[in-house]
Amino acid sequence: MSIAITLPDNSVKHCDAGVSVLDVAKSIATSLAKKAVAGKVDGQLVSLDTQLNADAKLEIVTKDSADGLAVLRQTATFVLAAAIKELYPDVRLGQGEAQADGFFYDTDKDDGQLTVDQLPEIKAKMAEIVKADQKIAAKTLSQAEALTYFANEPFKKQLVQAQAGEIKGFQLGDFFDFEEAALLPSLKELKHFSLLSVAGAYWEGKSSNPMLQRIYGTAYYKEADLEDDAKRRQEAKERDHRNIGRDLDLFFVDPKAGAGLPYWMPNGATIRRVIERYIIDKELADGYQHVYTPVLANLDMYKTSGHWDHYREDMFPPMDMGDGEMLELRPMNCPSHIQIYKHHIRSYRDLPLRIAELGMMHRYEKSGALSGLQRVREMTLNDGHTFVALDQIQEEFKKILRLIMDVYEDFNINDYSFRLSYRDPKNTEKYFDDEEMWTRSQAMLKGAMDDLGLDYYEAEGEAAFYGPKLDIQTKTALGNDETMSTIQLDFMLPERFELTYVGNDGQEHRPVMIHRGVVGTMERFIAYLTEIYKGAFPTWLAPTQAILIPVADVHDDYVQELKRKMLAAGLRVEVDNRNEKMGYKIREAQTRKVPYTVVVGDKEVADAGVSVRRYGEEHAEEESIKMFVEAMQAEVRNYSRDGKRKPSEIDKVLGD
Amino acid sequence: MSIAITLPDNSVKHCDAGVSVLDVAKSIATSLAKKAVAGKVDGQLVSLDTQLNADAKLEIVTKDSADGLAVLRQTATFVLAAAIKELYPDVRLGQGEAQADGFFYDTDKDDGQLTVDQLPEIKAKMAEIVKADQKIAAKTLSQAEALTYFANEPFKKQLVQAQAGEIKGFQLGDFFDFEEAALLPSLKELKHFSLLSVAGAYWEGKSSNPMLQRIYGTAYYKEADLEDDAKRRQEAKERDHRNIGRDLDLFFVDPKAGAGLPYWMPNGATIRRVIERYIIDKELADGYQHVYTPVLANLDMYKTSGHWDHYREDMFPPMDMGDGEMLELRPMNCPSHIQIYKHHIRSYRDLPLRIAELGMMHRYEKSGALSGLQRVREMTLNDGHTFVALDQIQEEFKKILRLIMDVYEDFNINDYSFRLSYRDPKNTEKYFDDEEMWTRSQAMLKGAMDDLGLDYYEAEGEAAFYGPKLDIQTKTALGNDETMSTIQLDFMLPERFELTYVGNDGQEHRPVMIHRGVVGTMERFIAYLTEIYKGAFPTWLAPTQAILIPVADVHDDYVQELKRKMLAAGLRVEVDNRNEKMGYKIREAQTRKVPYTVVVGDKEVADAGVSVRRYGEEHAEEESIKMFVEAMQAEVRNYSRDGKRKPSEIDKVLGD
Repeated sequence: MSIAITLPDNSVKHCDAGVSVLDVAKSIATSLAKKAVAGKVDGQLVSLDTQLNADAKLEIVTKDSADGLAVLRQTATFVLAAAIKELYPDVRLGQGEAQADGFFYDTDKDDGQLTVDQLPEIKAKMAEIVKADQKIAAKTLSQAEALTYFANEPFKKQLVQAQAGEIKGFQLGDFFDFEEAALLPSLKELKHFSLLSVAGAYWEGKSSNPMLQRIYGTAYYKEADLEDDAKRRQEAKERDHRNIGRDLDLFFVDPKAGAGLPYWMPNGATIRRVIERYIIDKELADGYQHVYTPVLANLDMYKTSGHWDHYREDMFPPMDMGDGEMLELRPMNCPSHIQIYKHHIRSYRDLPLRIAELGMMHRYEKSGALSGLQRVREMTLNDGHTFVALDQIQEEFKKILRLIMDVYEDFNINDYSFRLSYRDPKNTEKYFDDEEMWTRSQAMLKGAMDDLGLDYYEAEGEAAFYGPKLDIQTKTALGNDETMSTIQLDFMLPERFELTYVGNDGQEHRPVMIHRGVVGTMERFIAYLTEIYKGAFPTWLAPTQAILIPVADVHDDYVQELKRKMLAAGLRVEVDNRNEKMGYKIREAQTRKVPYTVVVGDKEVADAGVSVRRYGEEHAEEESIKMFVEAMQAEVRNYSRDGKRKPSEIDKVLGD
Repeated sequence: MSIAITLPDNSVKHCDAGVSVLDVAKSIATSLAKKAVAGKVDGQLVSLDTQLNADAKLEIVTKDSADGLAVLRQTATFVLAAAIKELYPDVRLGQGEAQADGFFYDTDKDDGQLTVDQLPEIKAKMAEIVKADQKIAAKTLSQAEALTYFANEPFKKQLVQAQAGEIKGFQLGDFFDFEEAALLPSLKELKHFSLLSVAGAYWEGKSSNPMLQRIYGTAYYKEADLEDDAKRRQEAKERDHRNIGRDLDLFFVDPKAGAGLPYWMPNGATIRRVIERYIIDKELADGYQHVYTPVLANLDMYKTSGHWDHYREDMFPPMDMGDGEMLELRPMNCPSHIQIYKHHIRSYRDLPLRIAELGMMHRYEKSGALSGLQRVREMTLNDGHTFVALDQIQEEFKKILRLIMDVYEDFNINDYSFRLSYRDPKNTEKYFDDEEMWTRSQAMLKGAMDDLGLDYYEAEGEAAFYGPKLDIQTKTALGNDETMSTIQLDFMLPERFELTYVGNDGQEHRPVMIHRGVVGTMERFIAYLTEIYKGAFPTWLAPTQAILIPVADVHDDYVQELKRKMLAAGLRVEVDNRNEKMGYKIREAQTRKVPYTVVVGDKEVADAGVSVRRYGEEHAEEESIKMFVEAMQAEVRNYSRDGKRKPSEIDKVLGD
């Protein structure tokens, strides 16, 4: 019998039934067969020796594809499990999985879990298995056979029982494991792998289940790729804001005190305070009116807004106050700002009305999703809402965009892109029902982007239910995209809360609401900056901007006087007059990533100067105190990012 | 039979049994009998005609005493109720009461409650009753008689049923009312009274009971006193921060959005922001480390601290997060700052460790107690905790006290007093058990006050359970005492949370914790300032510091340029170029209590000057722009309170 095999280019190959995936690859090209590691039949990964018995779509999976890596890593999980069982027969296995950047396997052990100390041994055993190059063969067990085989594996037994029908897997010597997907035809390819770390993980991700020990690893087809990966991981570790946050004493989270509830230590609090003042002043200068509104509100407010219906699972449980009042920790600030709007009768002369706040909100993130300052349960959003007439949308949108880009420049954020989201033109009934609003406002947003000469991606069907939006995505230190800022039109909330303004026609009109965030939450923004700056915050943000070190006790008075001057100049300085070696103190200042280390000895006292070493530079330079202090002030005023003084700016200041 | 009557001076008078209080008064002095309005027998107020039949202590209550006023006002409630029943027979009566500054009676009516519109009519009817001068006679009813009499008075019936035995009261014509206490012997004295206002009040103060209408009034023996009272009430109304807050658009509270949860409008938010930045900068300069800590914490934290056991009724209900975690809105910041302390191992070199925060807290105040910004459920406290070694208490206490007095000076708060609270030396077992701590620390606090040469009141037995304290009490605008600042030693929390530091002996020691608040909560402090300043905030705090008014359109460019200059100088200015009359604009600026109204016409343009009118002054003066702007900046920098420029300060600045 002949079957028709459709290839990715839509060409059709006719083969005898029973042909293997590898045979098809060979029939296309020997070079393809050489690179082939698996097949994808009707979208499903299968091993190379899988026989085809009916018409199918087939893609040959090669080493250089994401699927090829997945097959390699799936094989690695299999070998990892085999190695662990060989070394520690009493370990109970959970499940393994290939991931975008590696693989893992969950294990459980009665007398203390596996630790990083065992990883070298396990890796060696894996290498041994690979070297033996035994055949891995696909195998199918009946439920009964599987339950017998897994008699001492309670987690595997659960998986068997949860599955109807036969259990597909692979056999390697005595070892059998579930594998729905493909494994490599030969273990020989599994040469470049490493075991990375261990961490607790709940069985099946449920916190009510036992905590297993997850073994992480990664694998590549080439040693060079594995090495690059190791470098990337090292870089990620060095940039991880949780590590830097600990090293620089910026913040901590203690699950015993409350999961996802960060405590900002003085250093982190200083960075946050400087940013908060900066953004408030920026917004005030840009025509925003800052307010403070309560973090609690009557639950009815979120019923009216629709949050309670559509967002409830991310909200904290309401508090029953006993007198009929139900109070809710707000998940968003919009309804609060609507209260501000509604507090007065508004006229067209008041529009655009710009309300801003550093608004604290609470969202119930699952405990597994919490991470440092990045994902938290209590957060303070640089939030703002502008209420505009329909014909003011374009100008206001431009104004907001200019503010955002201006702020980015001050933080030296250069790598960002725009994503404009429209409603789906084929499913307009899925969106808030106002044809004119959508048509006009989408055109205005697009027009504004074009006017400003900005490149942008247009995403049809990605608008919110309530209006079109622009997302501004930045690259994180590790190259991932993150939505930093957003400008969202909202036709719905003004309707739900019955907002009005009196037009110059004397009639009541409905305003449009624009939600906008410039730097997002303080928590996430500072996590982002910490990773971008790798902890070396620019002078204007650094918790300690300069450390002053007297060479000997005799220079201490001079240093104390310098400290007074610098404090009076609004700078954050410390004196290090501990009884330690100079080299030690300088190294410590560098470890703390303090922008300036200032040493004062006989020469400096004689010259009324200071010896200044910039963070990251090898050498110190002598300067006059006046010059040094004024240059630092200018650096703060200019939000100078790279630590390089900007001579033109400094000259301008000194020339005053 | 003769009875022995002991007078307040402990002299004893022997009289025949059955003698009336008035007779005793007459027997002492005719002048006394003339002033007498009631008696106080064994501490109980009784009418003058009450007969004495046994030995007793007796005080003659005269018009010029607080008790004398109470009797007058109690009589007024009686007459008020009689008048209401005569005018509106269908009104159901609640209860009446004499108060420190007046009286009230609660009423209920089916077809709409009594309103202020009815007060003149009621007052007239009261005057009529007084004029008729009928005899009020004490009368006692049995339960049955009372229930019959009050057949159509459901609230009175409840009171009767709640009382065992006979019902004491007074009769006036057909009208009978409960009166436990004394009434005047004759209605003639009730001449100088007024009815003031109406307000809803729950029956017996319980929110589950029906809402009645409370009629407020006051009464005095002299017309002059009634007039003074009216002036005081008018002043209180004008200074009431709730009224000023509404007029100047500072804040609002909307019970529908949440009782006791203020929304700070842009004007109020500006004042708050300026104060917050001021106090943070002041504390940073004084050696505090500012932090941000979460408003939520695991309930266990407040179990450890003892708040859950002793303070629970003021706390919000815990939130059950479903995964075993109970989260609580913090009622205090101390446990949060203890987390900061505990995050590192502390050594004696770290002490005193000063942690400060503008910490948001939530306290469950009863809805009846809520009032504007004064009593709220969500508040932000200027909080700080210093951790010290025992021998550092005195120096740190002085340092905190200096900070507080320094801040008071900046806000021009001059009228304050000190109250030092010790444990009760006769009941030392009621306090935290550490004899040495108490003895040494009380001596240190007293020593510090003496060193600083401050007057203070010593209150034995008023210390907290956990340590001695100093309260600093200020006078409010209406002359009441209010505790603005506090410095409290705490021996207990360091024990409960097992805080330690490593001494220079290498051993672990327990620190002492000092709780301190400089300006209290932002809410209460700004309520206080609003009343003290009567809304005319000093320039550095005023939401809008100057309003610029061009005389004609032709001066608008000049004014806009001036505005830019002033904004760049960090000042908060507005331009009023509306199409309104000059006089109207100037009056409006005064109504808004803006410190400076600046007018620009031909002359000012020609002179490169401005015409400046200070808030509250009649005349404007012309000045150069440079002079005006720099003087305003200096005023802001100096926290100038009275609006008068301080020439010396200004000269210093201009001389730079």
